[in-house]
Amino acid sequence: MPQIDATRLLSDLHGLRHIGLYKTGVHRPTYSADDMRGRHWVAERMRAAGLTTVIDGIGNVIGRATSSGPRLLLGSHLETQNHAGWLDGAMGVIFGLEVARTLGHGIDVAGWADEEGHYGSFLGSRSYCGLLADDEIDRCANVGDGTPLRTALAQAGLAGLPREVAEPGAYRGYLEAHIEQGATLEDSGNRLGIVTAIVGSHRFRIVFEGQQNHAGTTRMAIRRDAGVALIRLCAAIEDRFPRIAGPRTVWTTGRITLDPGAPSIVPGGAEMLFQFRDTDPALLFRLEEALDDLVAEANQGPCRVTIAYRGRSVPRQMDEGFKAALERAAERHAPGLHMPSPSGAGHDAQIVSERMPSAMLFVPSIGGISHHWTENTSDADLVLGCQVFADAAAEILASG
Amino acid sequence: MPQIDATRLLSDLHGLRHIGLYKTGVHRPTYSADDMRGRHWVAERMRAAGLTTVIDGIGNVIGRATSSGPRLLLGSHLETQNHAGWLDGAMGVIFGLEVARTLGHGIDVAGWADEEGHYGSFLGSRSYCGLLADDEIDRCANVGDGTPLRTALAQAGLAGLPREVAEPGAYRGYLEAHIEQGATLEDSGNRLGIVTAIVGSHRFRIVFEGQQNHAGTTRMAIRRDAGVALIRLCAAIEDRFPRIAGPRTVWTTGRITLDPGAPSIVPGGAEMLFQFRDTDPALLFRLEEALDDLVAEANQGPCRVTIAYRGRSVPRQMDEGFKAALERAAERHAPGLHMPSPSGAGHDAQIVSERMPSAMLFVPSIGGISHHWTENTSDADLVLGCQVFADAAAEILASG
Repeated sequence: MPQIDATRLLSDLHGLRHIGLYKTGVHRPTYSADDMRGRHWVAERMRAAGLTTVIDGIGNVIGRATSSGPRLLLGSHLETQNHAGWLDGAMGVIFGLEVARTLGHGIDVAGWADEEGHYGSFLGSRSYCGLLADDEIDRCANVGDGTPLRTALAQAGLAGLPREVAEPGAYRGYLEAHIEQGATLEDSGNRLGIVTAIVGSHRFRIVFEGQQNHAGTTRMAIRRDAGVALIRLCAAIEDRFPRIAGPRTVWTTGRITLDPGAPSIVPGGAEMLFQFRDTDPALLFRLEEALDDLVAEANQGPCRVTIAYRGRSVPRQMDEGFKAALERAAERHAPGLHMPSPSGAGHDAQIVSERMPSAMLFVPSIGGISHHWTENTSDADLVLGCQVFADAAAEILASG
Repeated sequence: MPQIDATRLLSDLHGLRHIGLYKTGVHRPTYSADDMRGRHWVAERMRAAGLTTVIDGIGNVIGRATSSGPRLLLGSHLETQNHAGWLDGAMGVIFGLEVARTLGHGIDVAGWADEEGHYGSFLGSRSYCGLLADDEIDRCANVGDGTPLRTALAQAGLAGLPREVAEPGAYRGYLEAHIEQGATLEDSGNRLGIVTAIVGSHRFRIVFEGQQNHAGTTRMAIRRDAGVALIRLCAAIEDRFPRIAGPRTVWTTGRITLDPGAPSIVPGGAEMLFQFRDTDPALLFRLEEALDDLVAEANQGPCRVTIAYRGRSVPRQMDEGFKAALERAAERHAPGLHMPSPSGAGHDAQIVSERMPSAMLFVPSIGGISHHWTENTSDADLVLGCQVFADAAAEILASG
């Protein structure tokens, strides 16, 4: 099997890390100046590796091998969450680049845009799979400051560029390497995870409308406090969901805002962003039913409560043949130190798997930390992961 | 009794309303450009009324009568809550100005700074009463964006100006007119409220520290979600406080923030601004004990919870003689349509009452709405209120 170049791999990972460096992590939200600098830097590295490279109209960086014969697509996303980790996404792209250089043929590499959802839901990989219509792009806006996606694309120099789309049958399939982002590998002493399935997620915006008023003069009995309505719904979710959830179900209220948010004003409005995830589609819909029931109960109170879908993704099973190739490679380089692993996080592979066979490889996250600037993985695990990834890619390319 | 000039009164109220106009309300946060424009406008009107006028080093506008003999201080605050009402504060200052013009002697007028607490707690009236030390000014900052008070004072052109202080024994006392900000007058068909006491308030910042992590990969059992800890404490407050509270006790969580506040990140930090109010000091401390207990219980969970005092104010009783003078004037102009009324809101009168006899007059708030741009009072109630205020001031000046 061909040997990756560990020094070259780590050098590229650190080169990309220094674009948007924040403490020991990275701040490269999608289409920011640093995100675009990162994309152009990766495109240059792909070109230096002999790949024909473009940055397309949604920001995807696509590098194509000039070789004939069977091809595999390797990749992940390039942007980060705000002030988050250096490996989340970036690692999978640089692994793809290193495998392309190591094998020297048959490997295309993708650096997807906005997997992290600053503007939408898996915009880059969905665009490449033909699953993103222009009118959805018209409607998307930044989840933080409301900037329209079209404005952001124009500012990033991407307006009017064509969007690349996967040619049907062009690839044997898609492989993505990623940090685990949990502590299961580390806690069990394993060094590699072969992903079995990727969770689906249901995501909501819940809005509460009450009556803004003075916090000193408005008697409790006549208040229509939107903040209290939100708190009661959140508390009810925390009570109800554990009774329905499976062992790996997760749910999160990631943002709460009160309007106007002043200490001496009864909030007239409130909003929360809520989501839950599982690998079982039936369970996801049972959770959604329970949420709808709780919202209906909340509407019996003095405030009006409305729920809007921000998005739903379907749980995806990974390809059996690819999983077997990854497992053989893992057993060759780290015998007994790999395990099957469901993915609690969403990944571009769940989108690409709608178009071609797909699989994923996990490397450990130190302390299970991710979406935070302290996220990290040991150099030894990075090098091992990339070698296993290269072996599996070579075996899949060589087969059949 | 001297007659106020209703046209002049309403004209000045509307003149001030148009500085920082927002829809039908006003946006003049303390030391903003519009707040300073408002203060200079009021100072000009005071000078035109023959008062010797200064704007001092904390932003107070003080207009002094040139007459000899007994003097009364009349006033209220000039800044507003964000995007709030046109009468809250402003009305009391313009009433004072109109009474000074009507009586022609013995009336000093104050337009206090920052009663609304954008930077601190009753900064203007406390400064005038000698209750605000320089080192507190050094420590204060904007509750919204963190701008230091010293910076705001410099930008407002107030840095280095002397702060005016009440000369002991200079005044018979202090009278403040204000909108009720509740619906008790309107609901009971009364047109005037004679304030009996002003509530005290205890104000807190409660901070939750957990562990920021990925919302998909971090199992529920190992999460340290600062947002969930906040929600459980808020819900516990809503359950516990009604069992301890008196009939007019109020409590409010006016602001909640989750850090980093992203939909797919388990919040590692959270913060809430909480307050409660009552006229009974013993009850206030029983509520604070209950809050301390709930915070101690919250600390049994996976997050660290700390509570910091933002401020405490003591309930204040109004002067008996002044109340009687206000009641006689009310009965003369609106027989049977006035009532004794506790103030659920804090007012500068609670500060000034530490230095001299003080009392307050309320006019109705339409729909009980305040701290919102739809806040309003009928012209007839404004004119009636100012006339009663003038009568009471004249009687107090003439007495003894």
